[in-house]
Amino acid sequence: MAAGGNGAGGAGASADTRAAFAQIYKTIKEELLADPAFEFTADSHQWIDRMIDYNVLGGKCNRGLSVVDSYKLLKGADVLGEEEMFLACALGWCIEWLQAFFLVLDDIMDDSHTRRGQPCWFRVPQVGFIAVNDGIILRNHISRILRRHFKGKPYYADLLDLFNEVEFKTASGQLLDLITTHEGEKDLTKYNITVHRRIVQYKTAYYSFYLPVACALLLSGENLENYSAVENILVEMGTYFQVQDDYLDCYGDPEFIGKIGTDIEDYKCSWLVVQALERADESQKRILFENYGKKDPACVTKVKNLYKELSLEAAFQEYENESYKKLIADIEAQPSIAVQNVLKSFLHKIYKRQK
Amino acid sequence: MAAGGNGAGGAGASADTRAAFAQIYKTIKEELLADPAFEFTADSHQWIDRMIDYNVLGGKCNRGLSVVDSYKLLKGADVLGEEEMFLACALGWCIEWLQAFFLVLDDIMDDSHTRRGQPCWFRVPQVGFIAVNDGIILRNHISRILRRHFKGKPYYADLLDLFNEVEFKTASGQLLDLITTHEGEKDLTKYNITVHRRIVQYKTAYYSFYLPVACALLLSGENLENYSAVENILVEMGTYFQVQDDYLDCYGDPEFIGKIGTDIEDYKCSWLVVQALERADESQKRILFENYGKKDPACVTKVKNLYKELSLEAAFQEYENESYKKLIADIEAQPSIAVQNVLKSFLHKIYKRQK
Repeated sequence: MAAGGNGAGGAGASADTRAAFAQIYKTIKEELLADPAFEFTADSHQWIDRMIDYNVLGGKCNRGLSVVDSYKLLKGADVLGEEEMFLACALGWCIEWLQAFFLVLDDIMDDSHTRRGQPCWFRVPQVGFIAVNDGIILRNHISRILRRHFKGKPYYADLLDLFNEVEFKTASGQLLDLITTHEGEKDLTKYNITVHRRIVQYKTAYYSFYLPVACALLLSGENLENYSAVENILVEMGTYFQVQDDYLDCYGDPEFIGKIGTDIEDYKCSWLVVQALERADESQKRILFENYGKKDPACVTKVKNLYKELSLEAAFQEYENESYKKLIADIEAQPSIAVQNVLKSFLHKIYKRQK
Repeated sequence: MAAGGNGAGGAGASADTRAAFAQIYKTIKEELLADPAFEFTADSHQWIDRMIDYNVLGGKCNRGLSVVDSYKLLKGADVLGEEEMFLACALGWCIEWLQAFFLVLDDIMDDSHTRRGQPCWFRVPQVGFIAVNDGIILRNHISRILRRHFKGKPYYADLLDLFNEVEFKTASGQLLDLITTHEGEKDLTKYNITVHRRIVQYKTAYYSFYLPVACALLLSGENLENYSAVENILVEMGTYFQVQDDYLDCYGDPEFIGKIGTDIEDYKCSWLVVQALERADESQKRILFENYGKKDPACVTKVKNLYKELSLEAAFQEYENESYKKLIADIEAQPSIAVQNVLKSFLHKIYKRQK
C-alpha cells in the first residue's frame, strides 16, 4: 500500500490557497474532458468525469498544496500572479493525480476494501478490473496537463523527466515492498533497517516529499542538478515521516489518527518490528517469530508486550530527536535562505505530529 | 484485448537487421538493470530480468523492426552507421516495451490464460497481481531508455510527447472497448461501424502503425506537425489491418493463422457482426441477437450461416479493394518519395495477407 493519506507539506496552506486550488481542479478536469487527442463518446466522457472525481478527490491534498506553498517561499511572495498561481496549482494537481494513480492500482494489488472512507474504485459495481486501465489513464492525464500548460517552457523536458523518474523510483520501491514483505513464506529474517529504509525511501519519500519541492524549484527556473542536497534532505524527511507513521500505527490514539493500526497483524515491515529484531535476544526473537503477522488478538498483545519490554517507545523518541537534529543541521547548511525556509516549513509540519 | 500479435511493418526485415535488433535488446536490458535511479537488491534484479524476458520477448517484433526499416527508407540508405542503427533499434525496442506493458495489463483485465504460447504473466506462480506493478515498470523503462539515449537531442521532448500521446490514445481506446463491448448487459444495438472504427483506431492503429513511422521521422530530424496526412494514412492502414484480423478470425485457416477464432463466442465488436447488423432484416437480426456471444457451437454455426447468407465474404473483398485503392491514392499524393516508400512498404506487407 502507498503512504498514509497524510503526506506532509501543505497542512498549513491558507484557506485562500485551498479555495484557489479547488477552483483550478475544475478547470483542469474540464480541459481533460475536452482533450482533442481522443473523441469522447457520451459514455466515456461520463465514465472519466466520475472516475477522476472518485479517485483524485477525497484526500487532504497536502502534496499538491505544498507545491504552491513551496513556490511562494522560494519567491519570497505571499501572493502570486494569476498565471503563476495557476501553474503552481496545476503542478500540485499533477502530484495529486499521481497519488490517485498509485492508490487505484495499489488497492487492486493489496486486495483492499476501502480508501478515503469509500469502497476502493475497483470494488465499485461495473468497474472491476477496468480500474487497471483507469489507473493508466490517470497517469496519462499528468502528461496531458503538462503538455497543455508547460509545453514551450524552457523546463518542459525537465518536468517530464522529473515525473518519469519519480514514478520509476516509486514503482521500483513498490516492487521491493511486494517481493520482500508480501510474497511467499512469511520470513522475519528478511526484515532489517536497510530493507525498511530502502522501501520507504523509494516507495514514498520521493513522490511525497521531494516531488512537490522539485516542482516548485523548476517553476522558479532552477536547475535540479544543483539541488541534490535538497533532494537528500527531503528523502530523509520522508523516511522520518514514514517511521512516525509506523510508530503511530501502534502507539497513536485511534480516535485521533482516524484508523486502527494493523501493521502487526498484516506482517508489515514496520520500523518497530525491525527495531525489535535488532534488540531481541534469542527467546524474545522466538516470541516475535511465533506471533508476528497473526490476526489473533492474543498474538498481537504478545508482540506489543515485547515492544514494551524492548523500550521501543524510548527508541523512537531517540530516533526522532536525532533525526530532527540532523535534519536541522543539514537544512541550515543550505546556502539559500529561501530554500531553508521551504525545508523548515516541511519539517515543522511533521515533527512530533500526533496524527 | 490488444491487437493480434502481428502488427505489420517489420515482416520484411532482413536477417541482419533482426540479428542487430536482438543484440541491442541485451544492451538495453543490461542498462536497465544497472539503472542508478534505483538500488537493486539481488531479488529485485533477478525479478526484473526475468520479467522483461518473459514479457518483451516472444513476439515477432514487427512494430519494433519497422522503425529500423522505415528509417532506412527515409534516409534512402540500406546500411546505417553504428550510432544511428543503435538509436533506431532502441526506439524499436521502446515500442516493443510499450506493447509488453499493454499486453501484461490487458491479460489481467481480460482474465486471459495464455499469451504467445505461455501462461499470461499474472498467472505465473508467485507473480499474481504484482503483474500490475510490473506493467507500470515496463512503461517506465521506456522513459529510462529515452532519457539515457536521447536526452539532449533536439527532438527529445517531442519523443516523450509522442509516446505519451500514443499511450493516452491507446488507453482511451481500451476504455471505450471495455465499456462498450465488454461490460454490462450484452446489447448488440450498441455495435455499429462508427463504434468499431473508433475503438480500433485508438486502441490499436496509433501505436501499431503510426508510432513506428513517427519514431523514424523524429530520428530523421523531421517535425511531426508537418506529417498529419501521414498519420491519417497510417491510422487508416491500422484500421484496415484490424478489419482483416476480424475477417481472418472467422474465415482464416486456423492451421495457417495459428489460432482458432472465437470472436463470435466472445461477443466481440467485430467488423463482421457490425456488417451483419447493417445488412440484416428483422428476422435475421433476431437470429443474431439470439445466437451471438454464446459458447454453444450450434449458436456459432447459426451466426456463421447468417454471415454466408449476407455475403460478408464478398463485402470484405469489396472493402479490401476500396480501402487499398484509397490508400494508394493518398500515399501517392504525398510530396516525398521516401515517405511514399515507407507507406507503401507497410501497405504491401499487410494487403491481402492470409495470416
